[in-house]
Amino acid sequence: MTLCQRVECVPNISEGRDAGVVRDVAQAVRVDGVALLGVDSDPDHHRTVISFAGSVEAVARAAFALAKQAVKRIDLNTHRGAHPRMGSLDVLPFVPLQGTTMDDCVALARQVGERIARELRVPVYLYGEAAVRPERRNLAAVRRGQFEGLTEKIKHPQWAPDFGDPVPHPTAGATAVGARAPLIAFNVNLDTEDLDLARQIAKKVRYSSGGLPCVKALGFALPQRACVQVSMNMTDYERTGLHGAFGLIEQEAARAGVGVLGSEIVGLTPQRALLDSAQFYLKLNGFSQGQILEHVLAEAERDG
Amino acid sequence: MTLCQRVECVPNISEGRDAGVVRDVAQAVRVDGVALLGVDSDPDHHRTVISFAGSVEAVARAAFALAKQAVKRIDLNTHRGAHPRMGSLDVLPFVPLQGTTMDDCVALARQVGERIARELRVPVYLYGEAAVRPERRNLAAVRRGQFEGLTEKIKHPQWAPDFGDPVPHPTAGATAVGARAPLIAFNVNLDTEDLDLARQIAKKVRYSSGGLPCVKALGFALPQRACVQVSMNMTDYERTGLHGAFGLIEQEAARAGVGVLGSEIVGLTPQRALLDSAQFYLKLNGFSQGQILEHVLAEAERDG
Repeated sequence: MTLCQRVECVPNISEGRDAGVVRDVAQAVRVDGVALLGVDSDPDHHRTVISFAGSVEAVARAAFALAKQAVKRIDLNTHRGAHPRMGSLDVLPFVPLQGTTMDDCVALARQVGERIARELRVPVYLYGEAAVRPERRNLAAVRRGQFEGLTEKIKHPQWAPDFGDPVPHPTAGATAVGARAPLIAFNVNLDTEDLDLARQIAKKVRYSSGGLPCVKALGFALPQRACVQVSMNMTDYERTGLHGAFGLIEQEAARAGVGVLGSEIVGLTPQRALLDSAQFYLKLNGFSQGQILEHVLAEAERDG
Repeated sequence: MTLCQRVECVPNISEGRDAGVVRDVAQAVRVDGVALLGVDSDPDHHRTVISFAGSVEAVARAAFALAKQAVKRIDLNTHRGAHPRMGSLDVLPFVPLQGTTMDDCVALARQVGERIARELRVPVYLYGEAAVRPERRNLAAVRRGQFEGLTEKIKHPQWAPDFGDPVPHPTAGATAVGARAPLIAFNVNLDTEDLDLARQIAKKVRYSSGGLPCVKALGFALPQRACVQVSMNMTDYERTGLHGAFGLIEQEAARAGVGVLGSEIVGLTPQRALLDSAQFYLKLNGFSQGQILEHVLAEAERDG
């Protein structure tokens, strides 16, 4: 393999209980040039998050194959779960990895979205960075009303789908196809059991209440560990890095006389998020990816 | 390619002026499965540092091919340079990268060293982590007396070569073959022109004067940039990380009321050195390489 021109795809399907269906839908991505990275089902949400990656072309084929299976196997008319949803394949985001840009992922979202609407008769909304209309950048707005409200909502000109006719698929609803930066689940644990403090700090940190761009944050109690946690989703580490969020939390905690016990990353992180933080703390100047031995080696092996 | 089981080799040859000879010797490593990473000649030292990497088997073949060319093309009888040396191929260290261990590199050093002695009639000393005798761990001790003193030195039982007869090769001398951790050239610039301070701090930092393990350090003036620098060789970042050296320098500078302007890495670094520092500063707990998206992807593509 080479390390260049990889893209990740993180479909969310509205099935989190029937392991057979989940397996069949996930297996659809097993085309040449694609690696299945993860399958994470939540029975309460009745939803599964799948992650796979590979070359742009292979991921496009795999994403469509998965969409086809999801539409065939999942009927939303009988679906009840905690998580909001409007389609069998509910969300289909593409994420740039090494050697690909957000623009590549936007193009990919539009190409795959068009094909899903045309061949599977599922109306498609473009969201996130792939949105054509600004009000569709926000997935929550696109999905508001959910599957049950879709027949009415889709008739309004402002909610006409980006691809396909303004009629929901009878069993598969509609799908949001988009592009976004890699998401990092990053938690910081505080040396206190004061849940209010965690909540106050989360409020300072999250963007929606005036905090850091591209950070979502909540405060939680972790009674088993006798501490509290600021739990974050970092939605674009290039805008707010791990060190940016960590630093602000550390500062706010210190002001209350509380120390930071440690942090944790849940699931996967792009390597660059950590390299960026190392560069920040070490005040590393003029550093480039071309100085990373493994990167040079991969490039040399690709070219050779 | 896969990211697994790669090893680096960093031969130092005693030719830094004749570009044709350097090119021919460096080209010898161009065997299948090997990537040439760098060729860095120093005319004053009359010495060239070459770096290449690949699978264990391919690197073994390439290292021998390079040794053969160096022995054939470089005559130490007419060699005068600033850098100490005892052989045409002076030093041949193997360095573990992803998926390989120091033990792998020790085995590789012994295998290639034996072959060099047997086929090229060049006596070989094992040094560094590959040393069989503790006093040969230190390369400087092995090389003391240099090419000119070798005929006498090699007769002493305590300096009998590890492989080959106790007679120097008439033109190529002897070669030190070894294994070592990746070396990182790491400099920290201080916001002052006080060279004495840089030298004092270098002394605090370097191991030889009681400082941090696996750190060599000197103080330099950088008049062009109107600052001074603590210039380091980090010889084992797993024992002393970049953050360890940086932190101590920052502390000592602060004590003198001087700030740190920034740091720089000269040449290549293994990615893990930076990841380790990120983990340190972010107080990241329970993090594993298996959480790095690119790593999981490479593994999945290898297995698939």
